[in-house]
Amino acid sequence: MIQAIEAALVDRSGRLARWTGDDAAVVRARPIAVTSIDAIVDGVHFTRSTHSPAHIGHRALATALSDLAAMGADPGEAYISLVCPPTFDDALELVGGMERLAERFATTIAGGDVVRGPTLTLTAAVTGWAEREDELVGRDGARPGDLVGVTGELGGSEAGRELLKRDQREPAALVHRHLCPQPRLAEGRALAAAGATAMIDVSDGLATDARHLAERSGARLEIRLRDLPLAPGLEPLALADGRDPYQLAAIGGDDYELLVTVPPAVRERAERATGATGVPLTWIGEVTAGDDLDLLAADGRTVTGLSGWEH
Amino acid sequence: MIQAIEAALVDRSGRLARWTGDDAAVVRARPIAVTSIDAIVDGVHFTRSTHSPAHIGHRALATALSDLAAMGADPGEAYISLVCPPTFDDALELVGGMERLAERFATTIAGGDVVRGPTLTLTAAVTGWAEREDELVGRDGARPGDLVGVTGELGGSEAGRELLKRDQREPAALVHRHLCPQPRLAEGRALAAAGATAMIDVSDGLATDARHLAERSGARLEIRLRDLPLAPGLEPLALADGRDPYQLAAIGGDDYELLVTVPPAVRERAERATGATGVPLTWIGEVTAGDDLDLLAADGRTVTGLSGWEH
Repeated sequence: MIQAIEAALVDRSGRLARWTGDDAAVVRARPIAVTSIDAIVDGVHFTRSTHSPAHIGHRALATALSDLAAMGADPGEAYISLVCPPTFDDALELVGGMERLAERFATTIAGGDVVRGPTLTLTAAVTGWAEREDELVGRDGARPGDLVGVTGELGGSEAGRELLKRDQREPAALVHRHLCPQPRLAEGRALAAAGATAMIDVSDGLATDARHLAERSGARLEIRLRDLPLAPGLEPLALADGRDPYQLAAIGGDDYELLVTVPPAVRERAERATGATGVPLTWIGEVTAGDDLDLLAADGRTVTGLSGWEH
Repeated sequence: MIQAIEAALVDRSGRLARWTGDDAAVVRARPIAVTSIDAIVDGVHFTRSTHSPAHIGHRALATALSDLAAMGADPGEAYISLVCPPTFDDALELVGGMERLAERFATTIAGGDVVRGPTLTLTAAVTGWAEREDELVGRDGARPGDLVGVTGELGGSEAGRELLKRDQREPAALVHRHLCPQPRLAEGRALAAAGATAMIDVSDGLATDARHLAERSGARLEIRLRDLPLAPGLEPLALADGRDPYQLAAIGGDDYELLVTVPPAVRERAERATGATGVPLTWIGEVTAGDDLDLLAADGRTVTGLSGWEH
């Protein structure tokens, strides 16, 4: 099986000196390496009944690449560890889903490990590259006066998860959003180059990730709930359930959009940067002195006790 | 818990620009990156009844570092993914075991991920470094006429596993050998510098790994069974069970010694290289034209159908 997997892989970076068949992959490095590792587990991050093997492979790599996006790094190589139950015979389809995503984002799956185990578990370690440290953006640079923006749309993945739970496959766009998250690599690099002061990818939900960014920056994020960009189709679904679509957008996980802060002077440059990729950038708040997150309703009052779908 | 883990980590490389608290770790690279990933799973690679959390952490990092040793790379950074059952509350002890090994081998645990899941699973991706590609050694360079050597001792880990299965803790050296494998990083670098033509770490058992090396090199390895360096204590244990200790040494896994080939002209240089680290290098055979592995008995006949302890 390992040989079949290796045969499905393609070197896209031109930097690989050795890879499959040796004890480790050998890569000609660029000056700055950016590395993240993420695991997804059957029954926790996906279920076999709703996710095809290709979806599972896609998801593992997408979540790891999303961390590189949030740093503004160029994608590079991925290293995959697959824990396979004896009954799982779709490893090649799983790697196929991963390889298609890798192709789209100029990533090379350069190494891996396949072992037996009771629970299907997929771990992706990804390395991206930069020429200089100051090309990259951390979570810690947000300063009072900065604008807070977010790429794309929010709440779609959570809505898709809810639909799948109900055995529904429509609206297809929401289901697709959950099954095939797209890392915002081009947007992350463009925002970093445009002068972003801090970035984080929205994996745990905007409210949670905004708190992480605020904490690391030692600043306060004031976010206007009504300005959150809703995923198309989310609003009618939420209203039919008696839910507030904006609250759902604020707490739904797995959107893998980028939450970014930029000084007002580079606002237009940031808009042009993401505009070039076709993914909108929406201004949803600003950074103030203080700490933590302030989610503001339309009347300016702070919203607490966000409510979503139960899981 | 993640914060407590992060507080236990130490930057040993001086190359880290960003690490804990951001989306990804940022490392100032050396010219050549060498990366491997390995997972270990509860009930497959260890059991909670015989392995303490510290042993589990040690094992995951040791097996990954062993791959860097087999390339002759300098150790660098490790990225850890931990899948924790809700009942597992020893993550800090596990990281402690890993961190102690990391300290011994100048490795920095630079990033990680902790998620919930039903089966305790620990994945380590490690990156080592080199200045030039030709400092590294693959599996593919063995040539007819080369000598075949192996570091340290064989069969000890398998004997330790067998003892633990019987609820025995003596001989302690064999049990320790199983619970605390040591990656041969200094030996790997020294052998690479001395002119080794091919290397592989002995993780699946000498016979299996020798086959991998032979296949990749397009050559034949003739190995004299009676010259295998037995782990002290293995022989009496094997004989008491009516087993051949040399066959056990040839098929026992998880020794993490290095199997190496060197041209005869650099034999003494290779001996001096490992002698400086205190780990013996034993000559066990030679490379000939052909393919596959030939295990030779004392009378020169080929040994087939190796027999070990049943698992």
